[in-house]
Amino acid sequence: MEPLILGLDIGGTYVKFGMFDEHGNLKSKWQIKTVRGGDELVELIWHSIQENIPEYEECVGIGIGVPGLVDHQNGSIIEAVNMGLSDFNIAEAFKRYTDIPVVLENDANAAALGEFWKDTGEVQDMILVTLGTGVGSGIIIDSDLFRGKNGITGEIGHSIVDRNGYRCNCGRKGCLDTIASSTGIVRAALDAFDEHAVSFEKGISEDEMKAEDVFRLAEEGNATCQNVIQHAVESLGFALANYASMMNPQKILIGGGVSSAGQKFIDDIASSFYTFSLSKIASTTLIEKAHLGNDAGITGAAYLIYKQTGRMIKQ
Amino acid sequence: MEPLILGLDIGGTYVKFGMFDEHGNLKSKWQIKTVRGGDELVELIWHSIQENIPEYEECVGIGIGVPGLVDHQNGSIIEAVNMGLSDFNIAEAFKRYTDIPVVLENDANAAALGEFWKDTGEVQDMILVTLGTGVGSGIIIDSDLFRGKNGITGEIGHSIVDRNGYRCNCGRKGCLDTIASSTGIVRAALDAFDEHAVSFEKGISEDEMKAEDVFRLAEEGNATCQNVIQHAVESLGFALANYASMMNPQKILIGGGVSSAGQKFIDDIASSFYTFSLSKIASTTLIEKAHLGNDAGITGAAYLIYKQTGRMIKQ
Repeated sequence: MEPLILGLDIGGTYVKFGMFDEHGNLKSKWQIKTVRGGDELVELIWHSIQENIPEYEECVGIGIGVPGLVDHQNGSIIEAVNMGLSDFNIAEAFKRYTDIPVVLENDANAAALGEFWKDTGEVQDMILVTLGTGVGSGIIIDSDLFRGKNGITGEIGHSIVDRNGYRCNCGRKGCLDTIASSTGIVRAALDAFDEHAVSFEKGISEDEMKAEDVFRLAEEGNATCQNVIQHAVESLGFALANYASMMNPQKILIGGGVSSAGQKFIDDIASSFYTFSLSKIASTTLIEKAHLGNDAGITGAAYLIYKQTGRMIKQ
Repeated sequence: MEPLILGLDIGGTYVKFGMFDEHGNLKSKWQIKTVRGGDELVELIWHSIQENIPEYEECVGIGIGVPGLVDHQNGSIIEAVNMGLSDFNIAEAFKRYTDIPVVLENDANAAALGEFWKDTGEVQDMILVTLGTGVGSGIIIDSDLFRGKNGITGEIGHSIVDRNGYRCNCGRKGCLDTIASSTGIVRAALDAFDEHAVSFEKGISEDEMKAEDVFRLAEEGNATCQNVIQHAVESLGFALANYASMMNPQKILIGGGVSSAGQKFIDDIASSFYTFSLSKIASTTLIEKAHLGNDAGITGAAYLIYKQTGRMIKQ
């Protein structure tokens, strides 16, 4: 049997699994529903691995991304609010079942590592911005994760772009998160519909409305939805331009569910970025759609193991 | 004779010199007027060194900071607009006079290195923001300069804080530079005086007005000047909070001529920063006045030599 590497992307709803061969190819993937409780979660994960990979004993390591603050050196989740976990050493918890090394990382960081690994450019400084239910980012500097001294970096979702904007979950106002996340886009659209007393699209109730619907309506010519998306696009370009004025990344990748809205959305963000950027930064920073879609997290999690075991540096 | 190290801070008006002993102590300093032309400048500098340091043959290296884009690896000034220099290899030019190694760095980076070197905290990630005729910054990550792949980092002066603000030299609108530099503060005060038809302070003509005057008038109770400074303070706190959301520095130092306005100015910037910051970043980032004043540049330039020759890492 050839050695294999597991990459896990633990979220508030699903745990995604990816099995990679020693050349870094994704051989199979699956997902299960998350459960509450750290020990319960680890037990569930371990059973799922045994069920799905008969040859799990050949596994050289398990890389894991979780949404929250982690101590990557000792494999401990410091706080993962959406998971209801704090001070939980997941690497320790796996020891009950297996001696396979377990490496932990924040999920945005893991996704950035995954995109960096599979990026075909000669890029060493890069940002992955993830537009999902929230807005996050992972930063690669000199071909490695930039974690900062407290593990809190790349909080672009909480850079303020509109001081008079919506109240954010963090308590402040006008964070990028309130404008460019799927939640923010939906809320802005619903509010705008209200305000302008435009009769709402048949067939979608307010409770069911998704960011995709806002994009679709905009494409069909609905001016209210076009404005909401234009505001998200401008705010993203603005926040990214200010970020880039600091670190001048060679590439910014746009990922997450919202990024699948289409190439025009990415192009519009890039165009906004170039408008707000210093020319010497605009001319040296590429903006692209992220490559891996939903697989970024499992890929980066697996890459943690490749890196740790020295099996593979960037392809 | 004990070995000595030279640190030079070349500006548009003056060249500052600092002579340091092998323990990193500043033994003497002086300055001369800058001249135009690269070769002329190097000749002038070399003469000034010979004049001021009889024992110049004991010099183990010359570190130089210049305001512009540099290729620090080959000692070449790529472009320094204020100096009227481009594609000038200053390290090469010194070879006509001496074999002493010459190391070049951007001046904001050199100043950040100097402050980092002399900072007494256990700090590895740090930003020095310089408020002078322009607003710049130098970034230290993992105890070393963060230069980026194109040598363009820390351009906080060109992060946009007010999309409807003044036109900046860079062509865009509302850059921090237009609000928090000495030039920006003076312009805003003069414009505000005009607008509100407030009779201008006796004894200062518009041409002579300096940022110090605006600070003094504000302290004396002039509401217009208080507003101008308040706007600069808020804008600095805002831009720094957005920067910190990316890299969560352990410390932000405020330096440059404008920073000498007093401790209240620094405290107000800190207070604005904490208002605009994510709480977990606010609680882990210190804001302080820079320590070295006008000596930051020469100190950091000298540190380049200590680093290169392995004579001294951080004290």
